[in-house]
Amino acid sequence: MNHCYGCNTCKSADKPLEGYIKGLPFETSHHRVESQSTKCGFGLQGVCCRLCSNGPCRITPEAPRGICGATADTIVARNFLRAVASGSGCYIHVVENTARNVKDVAQKRGEIKGENALNRLADIFGISEEDKYIRAEKVADAVLKDLYLPEYEKMELVEKMSYAPRFKNWKELGILPGGAKSEICHGVVKCSTNLNSDPVDMLKDCLKLGISTGIYGLTLTNLLNDIVLGEPEIRMAPVGMRVVDPEYINIMITGHQHSMFTYLQKRLTEDDIVEKAKKAGAKGFKLVGCTCVGQDLQLRGAHYEDIFDGHAGNNYTSEAILATGAIDAVISEFNCTLPGIEPICDELKIKQICIDDVAKKANAELKVFDFENREEVSEEIIDMVIDSYTSRRGDVPLNLMEDHGYENTLTGVSEGSLKNFLGGNWKPLVDLIVSGDIKGVAGVVGCSNLTAGGHDVLTVELVKQLIAKDIIVLTAGCSSGGIENCGLMTPEAAELAGPKLKAVCKKLGIPPVLNFGPCLAIGRLEIVATELAEEIGVDLPQLPLVLSAAQWLEEQALADGCFGLALGLPLHLGLPPFVTGSDVAVKLLTEDMKQLTGGQVIINPDAVETADILENIILEKRAELNI
Amino acid sequence: MNHCYGCNTCKSADKPLEGYIKGLPFETSHHRVESQSTKCGFGLQGVCCRLCSNGPCRITPEAPRGICGATADTIVARNFLRAVASGSGCYIHVVENTARNVKDVAQKRGEIKGENALNRLADIFGISEEDKYIRAEKVADAVLKDLYLPEYEKMELVEKMSYAPRFKNWKELGILPGGAKSEICHGVVKCSTNLNSDPVDMLKDCLKLGISTGIYGLTLTNLLNDIVLGEPEIRMAPVGMRVVDPEYINIMITGHQHSMFTYLQKRLTEDDIVEKAKKAGAKGFKLVGCTCVGQDLQLRGAHYEDIFDGHAGNNYTSEAILATGAIDAVISEFNCTLPGIEPICDELKIKQICIDDVAKKANAELKVFDFENREEVSEEIIDMVIDSYTSRRGDVPLNLMEDHGYENTLTGVSEGSLKNFLGGNWKPLVDLIVSGDIKGVAGVVGCSNLTAGGHDVLTVELVKQLIAKDIIVLTAGCSSGGIENCGLMTPEAAELAGPKLKAVCKKLGIPPVLNFGPCLAIGRLEIVATELAEEIGVDLPQLPLVLSAAQWLEEQALADGCFGLALGLPLHLGLPPFVTGSDVAVKLLTEDMKQLTGGQVIINPDAVETADILENIILEKRAELNI
Repeated sequence: MNHCYGCNTCKSADKPLEGYIKGLPFETSHHRVESQSTKCGFGLQGVCCRLCSNGPCRITPEAPRGICGATADTIVARNFLRAVASGSGCYIHVVENTARNVKDVAQKRGEIKGENALNRLADIFGISEEDKYIRAEKVADAVLKDLYLPEYEKMELVEKMSYAPRFKNWKELGILPGGAKSEICHGVVKCSTNLNSDPVDMLKDCLKLGISTGIYGLTLTNLLNDIVLGEPEIRMAPVGMRVVDPEYINIMITGHQHSMFTYLQKRLTEDDIVEKAKKAGAKGFKLVGCTCVGQDLQLRGAHYEDIFDGHAGNNYTSEAILATGAIDAVISEFNCTLPGIEPICDELKIKQICIDDVAKKANAELKVFDFENREEVSEEIIDMVIDSYTSRRGDVPLNLMEDHGYENTLTGVSEGSLKNFLGGNWKPLVDLIVSGDIKGVAGVVGCSNLTAGGHDVLTVELVKQLIAKDIIVLTAGCSSGGIENCGLMTPEAAELAGPKLKAVCKKLGIPPVLNFGPCLAIGRLEIVATELAEEIGVDLPQLPLVLSAAQWLEEQALADGCFGLALGLPLHLGLPPFVTGSDVAVKLLTEDMKQLTGGQVIINPDAVETADILENIILEKRAELNI
Repeated sequence: MNHCYGCNTCKSADKPLEGYIKGLPFETSHHRVESQSTKCGFGLQGVCCRLCSNGPCRITPEAPRGICGATADTIVARNFLRAVASGSGCYIHVVENTARNVKDVAQKRGEIKGENALNRLADIFGISEEDKYIRAEKVADAVLKDLYLPEYEKMELVEKMSYAPRFKNWKELGILPGGAKSEICHGVVKCSTNLNSDPVDMLKDCLKLGISTGIYGLTLTNLLNDIVLGEPEIRMAPVGMRVVDPEYINIMITGHQHSMFTYLQKRLTEDDIVEKAKKAGAKGFKLVGCTCVGQDLQLRGAHYEDIFDGHAGNNYTSEAILATGAIDAVISEFNCTLPGIEPICDELKIKQICIDDVAKKANAELKVFDFENREEVSEEIIDMVIDSYTSRRGDVPLNLMEDHGYENTLTGVSEGSLKNFLGGNWKPLVDLIVSGDIKGVAGVVGCSNLTAGGHDVLTVELVKQLIAKDIIVLTAGCSSGGIENCGLMTPEAAELAGPKLKAVCKKLGIPPVLNFGPCLAIGRLEIVATELAEEIGVDLPQLPLVLSAAQWLEEQALADGCFGLALGLPLHLGLPPFVTGSDVAVKLLTEDMKQLTGGQVIINPDAVETADILENIILEKRAELNI
């Protein structure tokens, strides 16, 4: 390895990783935090408008309106609505492809790994078909039909998929979504120049987009994938960069669309292909998990032990994983695939392949992957990856990090596997909550960013604070990748929990932080919350349950957050979205929302303070429930 | 009237208007050009990224990548794609509502004012139905079906609606659009964080969105409206603020969705309603045209002489029209309805009513208008408007501008009415072009902005330069409103044309600038261009025809512009879109596009220079055609 590029990197909660990145001979996102540290105040506050050629306009005390007359409230609400609509678009893209995959598999009478999952959805949707393939096809069709409804027709599955008191609340507020794709179009239109200028109307639309994102993009994506990819099973697995085994041809996967490459994944384990790998000098192929799709593979890892090496790390661990030198190709199908990996891949001769054009990286090969051409494209990709392995290994030095991460991380937690673990119902968990052995539940979800204290710094510190207060933490998203690489998902982490939670963990042999997998699994957390609320007989806002997207990164997280608000839950964010320039928006999100849905946004960059605030909310909710 | 608010307004090509605005007692957009004159260089160049919580990031020589690694090229292309997708969304919203209206009217066996227009579309679509209502319904359904196709299925009407050589070019480039609404979603997803980073791929998608915008949002919106609203007929009409008659109850209309209020429009002329107006002290009701929907009413004015007073002015004339004191209500159904009219309406007690929630203004009443509830909502709106009239007249002083504008402006020009005027075919026009009596054709289209020299300054000056060079000008959009209010659409304007064009105009009794109406009518210009190309037997890029959206304003204009580029036409813009921070984007748009589609973007803020450049292009094209 050459000399290091520069040690001026941001902090990481993962100290070994921080040290490793400091020593790398090339620039990473961790280095660029410093060079991009001068932030635009107008952008941060959301009061910069660049919708039209009269702009950009910026709101100041001396110029309280843009040229067209838009106020800070209008500009902020427009920018926020556009972000939420775009974020929703991302998840709806994912669920659409997922439903199409279920349909294709069903039509081809392919493998249905999760018949229970299929039956569950068919029941909810009211579909009774003898033939499981027709059943699966009808389930997929019901989802696709809703996605394509016009904005002025309400989606049919919303009522079926949601908790009755919530549905009632949404109906009263007039925020039941029409067709999910049309709602996205409607959202981006509404925030265009000289159209809507009413901040409250636009922010209400964000809730509507949150509901369609949550029910379809999150919850249904998981449940549809369970049909074809297999349901999660609780097990122990290794995590961190240790999972990279240089004796294999390694493909790092990034994205959110696990169903897109299952054919390729299976093919990589078949004898003739393994033989090809051996001929090239490797033991075979392995997929190395990165970003949410890695989390999803980890979650369902019980079904994929032969091909999946384990989850190496989250979005901002990507560059380090590549830097090991043992990755021969990156296959990306969605975000979060950092553009910053491009020069690193060039430098380390790593082949980049994108299988969905929305995720086409500048220097990557686009191999559009659809069900029809999957066989042909898979063979082409395999040949490219082998070529890459052959040409780069020996030429590019290894820089492994074999001790990084943990060997025994609990994974495979879902609404189903957790309930099974508890004996088939939620009563044991409810009893622990009622008794105070578990003070409350915190969903620590969403992304990893580099600016809330550094890489996973706030997330990990907040989790430590919460578990020390006997609050059990459930995670989903890139946050999970950081938390698990810091060891908080091993059974030994029970030692970090408060005395009561520690005792529960030790008794059950579980860590105090349970990993539900990718950000998509926020939808699984919602099922858990709903089933707990049903068990207790209350609405969601009454539960001693809080959410934190401490280190939210992307617009998708904002759409997720709007789902959380629509569910009526308190939602902590370490950094505010770009809305602080509008008093109306801030008041609506942090205060008035309580009266609308029961939800509220809490902004706080400090882990200790945040944990106190969230604990207090939990204690209030407990008091109101008389527990 | 109180003392004037401040004389520091931007220039206007319309000097009487400029003087009037300078004297107004309240702030207008013309005043705010000064207070918003400090522009952000990062925003102007498109190198500011605020997609994620690590941002905003800004590209500088010292920081050539955002934290994620995105380069200037990636950031610019993302911002541009998002703008084009949103602009496309706006027009697709309009065509969807237009098609729904045709369908509703057909199902209710309502009035079909333009049976020729219906038959033309039915022929193109290959629909043969005896019953005209069923025919109309099927035409509408064919459009709606295409809009709702997935992104991965190509729209069927594109081939039917486009010129064969163009369709071939688009197919070869891989830019045939899938379902228009899904393409919008696809566009906003593709430019999201950590997804696509390939500027060329993203810019190609802009062309795709341009095609769906142009064929559906522009061309088909006009042709569908022709069925129900009546086809344009050439006639003379008054324009400018003179059209405001204080003896009537006046409703200023703004938007792009003429079909939304036709029921209300008709109702306002019926005896019982006129009686209500008379009881309130007025002679009746009048609609005062503003923005593109005013242009559309003017275009079809032959059918609406009883209710339509005339077109008063474009988007940035809105405030002045309100300031006359004789407007009692504003009904808006889309952009360009400036948020800046809100405080003025409050001050002058003008009732604001929005009939489409995408256009809800902060202080306006939302009366969602759909076909089913049109009778009930119309009565409510009428009562609100009468209330407004009663409570404000006498209380709010008049400040009329009775001399503003022109009495004898040629209007009603369309691809159909112009061809009829020429004797039923294009040969006379082709002959004039071949002989050189008309050197070439310039489409001066799109918006009005305040920053390219001031209100309509560049547009009007460029038009004067072009006609002086014997180049005939066809217009569509808010630019038309400025040009006509400056007198260039009266037959007397022939005096400003070059000697050859002047002779043609005098012979035919027409002005040297022909107004096709709203920006939607860019689609009509495309039909004219295509029919001329067919007549001559060449492809569009070979025609001596240029486009200028000299004072483009909105994202919609960018989507229109992408249509122009897909058509292979040279496109002048007075101000660059926010792309100049990317060498790749600039080169692609201004140079490489010539090899792709034949189109090119020309950026120039100077009217004289631009006219020379456009004339040279026309002369080159003439030379290549040996004429």
